[in-house]
Parts: sequence; structure tokens; C-alpha cells
Amino acid sequence: MALRLLEERIRRDGVVREGDVLKVDSFLNHQLDVELFEAMGREWKRLFDGCGVNKILTIEASGIGLACIAAQSFHCPVVFAKKTETKNIAGDVYRTQVRSFTHGRVYDVIVSKRFLGPEDRLLLIDDFLANGAALSGLLDLAMLAGAQVAGAGIAIEKAWQPGGELIRSRGVRVESLARIRSMSEETGVEFC
Amino acid sequence: MALRLLEERIRRDGVVREGDVLKVDSFLNHQLDVELFEAMGREWKRLFDGCGVNKILTIEASGIGLACIAAQSFHCPVVFAKKTETKNIAGDVYRTQVRSFTHGRVYDVIVSKRFLGPEDRLLLIDDFLANGAALSGLLDLAMLAGAQVAGAGIAIEKAWQPGGELIRSRGVRVESLARIRSMSEETGVEFC
Repeated sequence: MALRLLEERIRRDGVVREGDVLKVDSFLNHQLDVELFEAMGREWKRLFDGCGVNKILTIEASGIGLACIAAQSFHCPVVFAKKTETKNIAGDVYRTQVRSFTHGRVYDVIVSKRFLGPEDRLLLIDDFLANGAALSGLLDLAMLAGAQVAGAGIAIEKAWQPGGELIRSRGVRVESLARIRSMSEETGVEFC
Repeated sequence: MALRLLEERIRRDGVVREGDVLKVDSFLNHQLDVELFEAMGREWKRLFDGCGVNKILTIEASGIGLACIAAQSFHCPVVFAKKTETKNIAGDVYRTQVRSFTHGRVYDVIVSKRFLGPEDRLLLIDDFLANGAALSGLLDLAMLAGAQVAGAGIAIEKAWQPGGELIRSRGVRVESLARIRSMSEETGVEFC
């Protein structure tokens, strides 16, 4: 379900760059418009109401702000998957790998076993869905933990890229608040 | 000013490990208790009320959730400094370096010039203050941008480490919601 407020903001402040890049760093993933995030959190709550979500799982860094604000609507905690192992996380982690197309490399992505388990019914949150690599990684972690997945809340889906179909074909409900059909530097952004 | 709610949570759920490590990953920096964050945000707002804060600056990843929730009390946007350059941020960035004692290496930390300037009066937010490396990095970025700094809001300060004095000696007001005087695996945590 599209969120008009987000679409309008993308139209106004998003910048299309060559190489399929949509810069939304003025409000979504570098500078963060928390009031916009509140509207997005309320919309995901409306869409996933009654689905029994008791935890939000996201991935550092851009997902964290969205996840925290959404968690206020769901009255549940957030867990964010980390992209490298740190000294502060002991051995007991679920681990998968995610290819970042933006950075051109593969990350190890981990989450502590203490914070994900069969009792969890997860909403996955991320800012972008394009190739589906990050979201697939979150699904892997949920599966390793035996957690259920109520669905995924995405801010911006690049609908011409394969991620959306990939994830939906795994039986996961994906709710993207802005689905972009196509975009170009000349004509800007066209939504689905 | 100490926030009793945070101190109690650290006493209950924090785990002291060898090497001066305090694990608070069940509520502060891996799993996130957003309701606790709300209480912390309100306390920083009470402490910095009337200081003209119009932007919150933090550093990925652990600071982002705290910063977003605090921003709701201040009705202002968040900017988070990034630890490596990505393709999506064009050349025009302020840049400094931060040594991570946890990871044992030096990061480049950047923020886009578009989101930090002389018109900004910043509240710096981070989860830990120990050696002061991350907070010094944020101060560097603020100075490079010509932005004013109203102060720093810290969740947990390890008061026996040099960061607090280092930052305060630069004339910056630091408000740590839990200041730990000492800690050990045997006796746990003692607050100032």
C-alpha cells in the first residue's frame, strides 16, 4: 500500500543519479526526518495489525531509525543485525552473508542467539528493497532462529529489480510504502 | 543528571566482562528497548531545554536509535555520521578519523556538507562515552561545518576512562544518564 506522504517526499527531495541510484539521503538514510518515519511506522502498523508482531528485525545502519520509530506503534523491541562481528558479541550468533551492491562486497551478518528464537513473530524493516540481498539475509537469520516472519515493511522498493519478486516468491508478505516502477535522471521517478 | 530507570536496567541486565566490557546488548545496542529510549529522550530534552537544539548528530550504528527517539522530543531531524564512504555520498563531505577501541582500528567518519552548517545548533548523541574517540569525531565534524554544539547526550559514561574529562575540557556540556564509577565481574557496577 503506497504512502502518499513518502511518494511526495521522494518526488520533491529524491535525486536520481546514473547507475540506478536514488539519493534520498536528505530525509531517509543520512539525514532522517523522524516525523515522516512516524507516519511510515503508523502505516506499517495499520497494514500488519493483528499479525502478532512481537519483535522488529532490521539491519544496520539505515534500517535502525525506521525500525525504532515503527516499534513505537507495535510496542515491541527492535533487534538489528550487525554487519561484522565485534568483540562485544560472544560466539553464540546466527550468521549469514549479504552481498552489498552499493559497496561491492560481501558482509557477514550476525545476530545474537539470545535475541531471536521460535517465540518471535517478526516484522522485518529496511529502507530499500532492490536486489533483495539484505532482506534475504534477514530471512535467513529468522529461519536459523526458528522465528516466524509476519512480513516485511520496506520504505522504497525498486520494482523493476528482482528483490521484490524474489522475497514474495518465498511466501513473505512485503509491504513497500513507495514502489518505483521506473526512474531516470531526465524524467525523475514514476511510481507503480 | 542520572536517570534512575537506566541505572536500574544496567544493574539488572548489564553484564560485566573482562577487559572493561559492559554488555548492554539486551536493551541498548543490539536489542533495543524503545520505551527506555523514550524516557532517555525526554530526560535529554529536560536537560537541554531552551538550548536551541535544531539538529541531532550521532554516529552509526548504535547511536541512531537513541538519536531518532530523542529527536521526537526536540522536534528536529537527525544526521548520522557514516563510518566509511559509500558510492551514494558524493565528494562533498566533512571527514575525520575515529579510533575504535572495540574493533581495534581507525575509521574514516564522514557527513555530507549538505546536512551540517553554521545554522545548526547540535545535540550530539551516543550510547557510550569511554575514551571519547567517537564523540571527539563528532565534535571535529561540527567544527569543520562551523556548527554550534549545545552539548552531548550520552547513555552510559565509564567515568574512570578519560573521555568525559577530555570532552568537558573542550568546553562541551556532557550529560550522561548513567555514570559508572567502577565495575568488576565480581561486584558488578557502581554508579557515581
